[in-house]
Amino acid sequence: MAHIELTWIHDQTFLGVDSTNHSIVLSPGGGVGVKPSETMLIALASCSAVDLVEILKKQRATLHRLAITVDGEQDADPPWRYRWLHLRYQVTATGATLEKVQRAVDLALNRYCSVRSSLHPEIEVTFEVDLNTPDREAGE
Amino acid sequence: MAHIELTWIHDQTFLGVDSTNHSIVLSPGGGVGVKPSETMLIALASCSAVDLVEILKKQRATLHRLAITVDGEQDADPPWRYRWLHLRYQVTATGATLEKVQRAVDLALNRYCSVRSSLHPEIEVTFEVDLNTPDREAGE
Repeated sequence: MAHIELTWIHDQTFLGVDSTNHSIVLSPGGGVGVKPSETMLIALASCSAVDLVEILKKQRATLHRLAITVDGEQDADPPWRYRWLHLRYQVTATGATLEKVQRAVDLALNRYCSVRSSLHPEIEVTFEVDLNTPDREAGE
Repeated sequence: MAHIELTWIHDQTFLGVDSTNHSIVLSPGGGVGVKPSETMLIALASCSAVDLVEILKKQRATLHRLAITVDGEQDADPPWRYRWLHLRYQVTATGATLEKVQRAVDLALNRYCSVRSSLHPEIEVTFEVDLNTPDREAGE
């Protein structure tokens, strides 16, 4: 069972606390906290990242750097549903190939990510992978 | 356009940054950050809270306290999609009636919340409102 609590602090500022007692300050654009609508995208990226790190480890790749950007566009009218989301995985790893990392991202995002699977099926979710392999650079 | 970036810090710990440069530390249960799967629920609650505060203000209610809990259950198997989510709005306000607050929550959650509208339609999303009116208590 998942459980969170959100408390109003003042004006448009809120404190969110998860079941492990870790917290987030939230507010719409321009406030002191993260934006609620983009917090969903951070949840999506991190949800996939947890499994991606595990899968790369099982593939015996050594991860040096991982950065994920999520871009998205919302409907112009209320309730401003996301139309599409694009995730770009920038991976620096040794012992990895682009094909293996693409497969790992596909598994992490599309087979094991609860946030991804909880999204509306009409939201088009795409991804790309940029792989940087420092071992290749070192050999040049 | 929405935009976020997530960076791997180490092991299973990540830093998420939104387009306004506010950040969240995330990690699966037991780590130092919020859980990715519950971060989506915090996004949902805060998204509805932003509009609820506005609507209550337009209703000329004075908000003293607002706390929202979200409980949810996920599928037992991967990708662990949420089956249902239940939001409980605990509102303390003067100049408000239960009917008006319920109407305000319905609008905030179901008509104006981008996170709510981006959820899979098979996730059953329900809510309840507990209203505490201190003006009534003061008159007793």
